[in-house]
Amino acid sequence: MDTMFTIGLDYGTNSVRALIVKVKDGTEIASCVWSYAHGDAGVVEDPRDPNLARQHPQDYLDGISASISGALKEAGQEPSFSPDRVIGIGVDTTGSTPLPVDKEGTPLAFYEYYKDNPNAYAWLWKDHTAIAEAELITSTAAKMKPRYLAKIGGTYSSEWFWAKILHCLKVDKPVFDAAYTWVEIADWIPAVLTGTTLPEKMKRGVCAAGHKAMFHTDWGGYPEPDFLEKLDPALVTLRKTLPDTAYTIADAAGTLTTEWADRLGIPSGIPVAVGAFDAHLGGVGSGIRPGVLVKNIGTSTCDMMVAPGDMKLPDIPGLCGIVPGSILPGDYGLEAGQSAVGDIFNWFVNYIEPGGKDAGSHQALTREAEKLKPGESGLLALDWNNGNRTVLVDQRLTGMVLGLTLHTTPGEIYRALIEGTAFGARVIMERYEEYGVQVERVVNCGGISIKNPMIMQIYADVLGREMEISRSTQTGALGSAIAGAVVAGREAGGYATYGEAVAQMTGVLDTRFTPDPDNTAVYNRLYRLYNQLHDVFGTREYSTNLFNVMKDLLVIRDQARKQ
Amino acid sequence: MDTMFTIGLDYGTNSVRALIVKVKDGTEIASCVWSYAHGDAGVVEDPRDPNLARQHPQDYLDGISASISGALKEAGQEPSFSPDRVIGIGVDTTGSTPLPVDKEGTPLAFYEYYKDNPNAYAWLWKDHTAIAEAELITSTAAKMKPRYLAKIGGTYSSEWFWAKILHCLKVDKPVFDAAYTWVEIADWIPAVLTGTTLPEKMKRGVCAAGHKAMFHTDWGGYPEPDFLEKLDPALVTLRKTLPDTAYTIADAAGTLTTEWADRLGIPSGIPVAVGAFDAHLGGVGSGIRPGVLVKNIGTSTCDMMVAPGDMKLPDIPGLCGIVPGSILPGDYGLEAGQSAVGDIFNWFVNYIEPGGKDAGSHQALTREAEKLKPGESGLLALDWNNGNRTVLVDQRLTGMVLGLTLHTTPGEIYRALIEGTAFGARVIMERYEEYGVQVERVVNCGGISIKNPMIMQIYADVLGREMEISRSTQTGALGSAIAGAVVAGREAGGYATYGEAVAQMTGVLDTRFTPDPDNTAVYNRLYRLYNQLHDVFGTREYSTNLFNVMKDLLVIRDQARKQ
Repeated sequence: MDTMFTIGLDYGTNSVRALIVKVKDGTEIASCVWSYAHGDAGVVEDPRDPNLARQHPQDYLDGISASISGALKEAGQEPSFSPDRVIGIGVDTTGSTPLPVDKEGTPLAFYEYYKDNPNAYAWLWKDHTAIAEAELITSTAAKMKPRYLAKIGGTYSSEWFWAKILHCLKVDKPVFDAAYTWVEIADWIPAVLTGTTLPEKMKRGVCAAGHKAMFHTDWGGYPEPDFLEKLDPALVTLRKTLPDTAYTIADAAGTLTTEWADRLGIPSGIPVAVGAFDAHLGGVGSGIRPGVLVKNIGTSTCDMMVAPGDMKLPDIPGLCGIVPGSILPGDYGLEAGQSAVGDIFNWFVNYIEPGGKDAGSHQALTREAEKLKPGESGLLALDWNNGNRTVLVDQRLTGMVLGLTLHTTPGEIYRALIEGTAFGARVIMERYEEYGVQVERVVNCGGISIKNPMIMQIYADVLGREMEISRSTQTGALGSAIAGAVVAGREAGGYATYGEAVAQMTGVLDTRFTPDPDNTAVYNRLYRLYNQLHDVFGTREYSTNLFNVMKDLLVIRDQARKQ
Repeated sequence: MDTMFTIGLDYGTNSVRALIVKVKDGTEIASCVWSYAHGDAGVVEDPRDPNLARQHPQDYLDGISASISGALKEAGQEPSFSPDRVIGIGVDTTGSTPLPVDKEGTPLAFYEYYKDNPNAYAWLWKDHTAIAEAELITSTAAKMKPRYLAKIGGTYSSEWFWAKILHCLKVDKPVFDAAYTWVEIADWIPAVLTGTTLPEKMKRGVCAAGHKAMFHTDWGGYPEPDFLEKLDPALVTLRKTLPDTAYTIADAAGTLTTEWADRLGIPSGIPVAVGAFDAHLGGVGSGIRPGVLVKNIGTSTCDMMVAPGDMKLPDIPGLCGIVPGSILPGDYGLEAGQSAVGDIFNWFVNYIEPGGKDAGSHQALTREAEKLKPGESGLLALDWNNGNRTVLVDQRLTGMVLGLTLHTTPGEIYRALIEGTAFGARVIMERYEEYGVQVERVVNCGGISIKNPMIMQIYADVLGREMEISRSTQTGALGSAIAGAVVAGREAGGYATYGEAVAQMTGVLDTRFTPDPDNTAVYNRLYRLYNQLHDVFGTREYSTNLFNVMKDLLVIRDQARKQ
């Protein structure tokens, strides 16, 4: 095992990354990022419709060669490395990013006729053109199949598989009709590498199917025909092209074809794992296991946990998804998240530009915010500038800053925005625990967790938990590489189980952020006020008077200032 | 009357203005502003206590000569003017700005011993050192004398006469003991001009006494001894130095002394009107009469009305003051206001500096805000960054901006802040009308009313009323000049009554802002949401769910964007 390697392929929104990893201990010996060639940084947009976001699948193909070749070249500098020691490949992608393909599994976008029609491209995760269709799916399921909604937190999203396909059917029937089936790119890319793109052969991953396409063994896989019929009869025909089984990342999509092996210069016949979403394999790359909450904190967050498959797990209201095997095979995969975190700080810096461009950088605002004690600003923010994913599952919520005076500074607002996202994070953690999924450790990954220690300290203080930081800065790619090591198996020099692989190949930094009890005490008081606002603005059930809110904030502020 | 003139002296926070006016038609022929010499732009501050704000009375004396001499010099260019045609003087000042004086009426600040002690100076209106004493006065009155509170909106302010004096007693007993009495500068300056500073001789104006010192004929003038005894027995002694009678601006404080006449070069013996506050005489200068709401819009607002003295006027909850004769003799004077208006816009520009210093000027933000339709931003603001004066009378309220997204711009926030102040203005207008004081016209004065047409249009649309703009840009000084014309009387070439004088000497601009019914319809919807937030955050009585608020704002926004 000492000298074996795997490759993780990580398809992001703007680029693809290949990472070459030592199987023994997860050491990352080489990586290469290739930026997509189409559209604006890989995203094909429509100036007339800000909700539209597509990708050309040619970028996915070109990205395989470009990124892996680049990484292999860099890996050549590592003495123990040799391309023939690569034993497996794993793939993670954005999602739900469904792609219309023909009977051979070839994207319609590759046809001359469709080459300029974005509806024939991949519908990128952040495409929001299907808001009306998502609402229709939610309301139809609420009437006909409430159990579908119970697994996805109660609301079907415009970002997801069926909403996008139904929208295509409404706005571009020729594309819908020309497509034999639709496939998540998380499934299509491994199929390409293994020559299994024929729809009858192509394996579909339970991560995408379960979280985004309402696939569940409780009702025999994809949504039942009577439900799809109600949405549109054409979807019943489409359903016939979808398999009854979905696979976990413990399964191989197939083995690397000779053509790809020759082109890349690595062994043919090595297994390629079934694909999964970047966040989920990022959880794997961060060391997820029962009791560990992995928080991927970037422009938005993904807050993942797994629960043992033999646990009696109730439906958890407001959780985006509970899918057996979607993160680790054998465990329930649970996904929650915040619609915007870094995006809120970016909004403040880039749209408001407080204090001018120089004084208003993240660095400058962090310096000002660092000087403040908890509660000292008198401010309280609701972190809903992009709606609320968990636990309210409501896109039509908005952000708020309360407690403004004639002396409120940009640094104070910046800190309040950070604290608002921390309170939102605490709501998610508490929801997990309220339903029996105990959080013993919190491991953070993603850009913000590495770049901004102040934010991590605030999170530690607000959540009242130690914040650990994933050792890897490319956890999605590392998780994919781990998948490659597991599907390769012990005999090839990999691992028999994810338990072993994760234990050996992941880790956390020595730097940990420990809650300060005094700060936590203040934040507990602020969190009560946050919750009061959260429930009165975010739910229909809770009525209250709010006379206390501004007063309490001023009392807390005055006490903080006196210290 | 054709060739007679009066002088209005207007003592502001940073400077004093002298205005020379034609009695016939109010034409302003000359003015001169003199900036105070002491402290920071006239305000003596304490770096250790941001609540402290004092003024040295020497500035009031020096300001008489400097401003009047300058104005007279300029008036010399007007052929019809001659100094001996000046028939009267009026004085307005900030307030409540009480000054400790000795048995001769000489300020303690003029003693060598006290010259560096700010407690011996005038306690400027915006001094907030007496918060605790104000709360004590309010709670004591609530128990012993609720009728005292009914005339001042329910809460005694830290800005007012008794709170400041009581605070001086607590923190600097030597100054309190050295003072024979305390006098509002609105009373002291006319006394100086007329040689009547001896406390037994000095007339006290009902404007200051009634609005700030709880003077009312219903209980025989200043607060009763048993009440003051309860606050502190030393106040009972002080009360004995205060007169039983208070005067309106129809009365002369006395006549100009020979010394001042010689020094200024105007006739001795001309009457000097009893002083009043700048806002109130600004109301007179804006043409106040029953049915006219005069809004003085600057950093904060003063919203004044008068009601006929023979009207059965109830106490109006939340109104700062209802005092017979305080604005126009014979009418009830009613005062309401917003704690911050221009100050909120200034905060956004100066503290947040959105878009950098260039892009974030009032002019640039106004250009952006002008492009927006009502409701288009999806934002709603509470205008409480400096508390709420009317109708909540609560300093411990704070500002709020709700409806933030990842695309919210500075121009949108700027407009929302303006709209927030307009909604606050509408609450005040509706409170007047709810209690039988009908608003037939709205006349605006003050910096913002002249400088920013967009704001005035928004006010017209939000209030659903035509906004008129006072012809004079120095309404306080004009009101004082009118007072000079009335105390001079008809025989001297002035007027017999304020009704005549105001009708002849004031007017409005031709430019009027008329409500657009479509805009008003949108603002009516936003105002309902504002009221919902106003009552749930601002009162103890109102409980509600707020699930509708963000949703309704988005619906209104989406409709506005489609137009």
